[in-house]
Amino acid sequence: MISGIEFAGVASGIKAAGLDLGLVFFKEDMHVLSLYTKNKVKAAHILYDRRIDNNPVRALLVNSGCANACTGKEGVADLHAIGQELSSMLGIEKEKVLFASTGVIGKRLPVDTIIGALPTLLKNLKTKHLQSFAQSIMTTDTFPKVVHETFQGNQEYNIAGVAKGAGMINPLFATMLSFVFTDYPISPGSIKRVFSNAGKETFERVTVDGECSTNDTVMLFTKSGNEDLSGLPAFKEKLLSVMRNLSLMIVKDGEGATRVVHVTVTGARKKEYAEKIARRIAISPLTKTAFFGCDPNWGRVIAAAGNADVPIQPSKVEIILQGEVLVKEGVEVPFDEQEMKKRMDKKEVELIVDLHDGKASYDIYTTDLTYDYIKINASYRS
Amino acid sequence: MISGIEFAGVASGIKAAGLDLGLVFFKEDMHVLSLYTKNKVKAAHILYDRRIDNNPVRALLVNSGCANACTGKEGVADLHAIGQELSSMLGIEKEKVLFASTGVIGKRLPVDTIIGALPTLLKNLKTKHLQSFAQSIMTTDTFPKVVHETFQGNQEYNIAGVAKGAGMINPLFATMLSFVFTDYPISPGSIKRVFSNAGKETFERVTVDGECSTNDTVMLFTKSGNEDLSGLPAFKEKLLSVMRNLSLMIVKDGEGATRVVHVTVTGARKKEYAEKIARRIAISPLTKTAFFGCDPNWGRVIAAAGNADVPIQPSKVEIILQGEVLVKEGVEVPFDEQEMKKRMDKKEVELIVDLHDGKASYDIYTTDLTYDYIKINASYRS
Repeated sequence: MISGIEFAGVASGIKAAGLDLGLVFFKEDMHVLSLYTKNKVKAAHILYDRRIDNNPVRALLVNSGCANACTGKEGVADLHAIGQELSSMLGIEKEKVLFASTGVIGKRLPVDTIIGALPTLLKNLKTKHLQSFAQSIMTTDTFPKVVHETFQGNQEYNIAGVAKGAGMINPLFATMLSFVFTDYPISPGSIKRVFSNAGKETFERVTVDGECSTNDTVMLFTKSGNEDLSGLPAFKEKLLSVMRNLSLMIVKDGEGATRVVHVTVTGARKKEYAEKIARRIAISPLTKTAFFGCDPNWGRVIAAAGNADVPIQPSKVEIILQGEVLVKEGVEVPFDEQEMKKRMDKKEVELIVDLHDGKASYDIYTTDLTYDYIKINASYRS
Repeated sequence: MISGIEFAGVASGIKAAGLDLGLVFFKEDMHVLSLYTKNKVKAAHILYDRRIDNNPVRALLVNSGCANACTGKEGVADLHAIGQELSSMLGIEKEKVLFASTGVIGKRLPVDTIIGALPTLLKNLKTKHLQSFAQSIMTTDTFPKVVHETFQGNQEYNIAGVAKGAGMINPLFATMLSFVFTDYPISPGSIKRVFSNAGKETFERVTVDGECSTNDTVMLFTKSGNEDLSGLPAFKEKLLSVMRNLSLMIVKDGEGATRVVHVTVTGARKKEYAEKIARRIAISPLTKTAFFGCDPNWGRVIAAAGNADVPIQPSKVEIILQGEVLVKEGVEVPFDEQEMKKRMDKKEVELIVDLHDGKASYDIYTTDLTYDYIKINASYRS
């Protein structure tokens, strides 16, 4: 619980079943910083929020079940209509309400349904309802993603975050939605770079299917008022930790995933090369199906690396899987295949590709590609 | 049958079962032109052939079941050893033998097994054995891919091609192996550009899983001797037709594929933009699973387009699926979802994305992403 921040989540009827509408109400003005999808096609909530999110804010309304993306001017107008109602019920200015949406692209928000649910939503507002807020933003997620930590400045502060993930999870920008709240008073100017770096180090380092959604949004809400700079180092550390934990939860809950694969590319001439190769390996369907099948098929890893469109010297490459060196100087080191299969049959798998060509490195988390990914996505809408 | 070109395919024991070693023997010197994978990691046969394929050639030995990739200098030395034996048995110079391989990466060729099978292979050489040659180069393919056409110059000529595909099929270079043979006398200089353009228009316009192998090779063998330029227009046309048919066979036989999706992006400001968007849509796992599930989920198409890292104006986009306009000016045109599902449940699906932003266009063929792709690739080696 963070005093002064109230949460609610209700089943409004946007989805056929389950919680689908969440509200965060700030008793006092908060600062907000946001990171948005790099997709050229952006959801209505991003177009709407971008214009006003330098303001002090008092409320955030989030829905699942409908992305409100590719809905044209009407999609943005719908948010104005809902914002009008919500702000007047809360007794705040309309410009202090932010929105976020997730779900199927191309459908308009059911405005009347949402407005009709607002009274119940407001009635449910409680500082302790973070969990049901986290549930209300889920789509194909199998568990709500909540992290709560504390840290010390002139007093003890709280930082709590929620996220939803599962599909359309991709590098550059990995999460669909994540919100982090703190009662620590700090202004956006003091932490803008800290926040965007934290995004690069966490949500941009996970992938499920290489798909970047139209809706991806990460928001950080901090208390306004006199800054407590004594807490800044601890805040930075906890912010990174909260965002990292949330992003790892997203990979673990990747659609159909049975394991998380941590791909590290090291010994690269440039960090950019390491990153490109790591990302290429992490989204390769052949690599990902091999991890599903516990197949130490390192050939697919090196083929993916060779496809990353950056220089690579095959004859220098070393590949280490679960601590076992499978490849040295580009050729196979004999290993016991059955033994390796067993060692790969874990929830977490470590893959290291050492290019032996420099000192730069990059790491990223991905999932295996399974029958259930197909099942979930061949029938998501029906 | 093409007189002067003999084929054979045998089960040598490289694979546990089935034909796995193929030979083409040219009774007279042939010209050869080759296109190779753009993967930075290249198989031994490419390193070997590249140095000698400006020569006149007399034989081509192809194996499946072992890619002979990432096998270091030894992988190339193995080809020298086999080439020595084969050329002396055929009574030709060693430098007139070319190789190609497909299969699992990282394993050395079983040189003794292959050399041991050569006598049987030579005994099987017949002009009519093109079919068993085509079978010998298959891996996860479900049918051999052979095309044979004729055309007219000063006399009637033949052009025949074979290919193998199935997995690791990707733009920029779509096929693992394809060989085209003709008794039409034409020199490489006269058709180098024609051939490389034909590659761009055919094999580079199909994708199964966005994976580019270490072994991809297309070779065109033409008769040496006096050129018959009167046949050139007909030859060009037939070459394109043979390569197009082979590349479409590869998509149809894509691992686990139940349908072929023809993606056309039109109305682009530049052809490069159209191509990038078409490719991005064609490799998107979410788009591909939607096609498997007959889900007219155009939101995934536009999200993939927005991810192609080229300019796009969402509010202009039109999407036409199976002749039905689903999206106009970036927003949905109401349609009957059940009716669309039925219309998508076809072997071939036409998707057109009109950017309404210029005159350039690009098209590419892809497959759906299915349970069987996972099944095949989670257990390919075991």
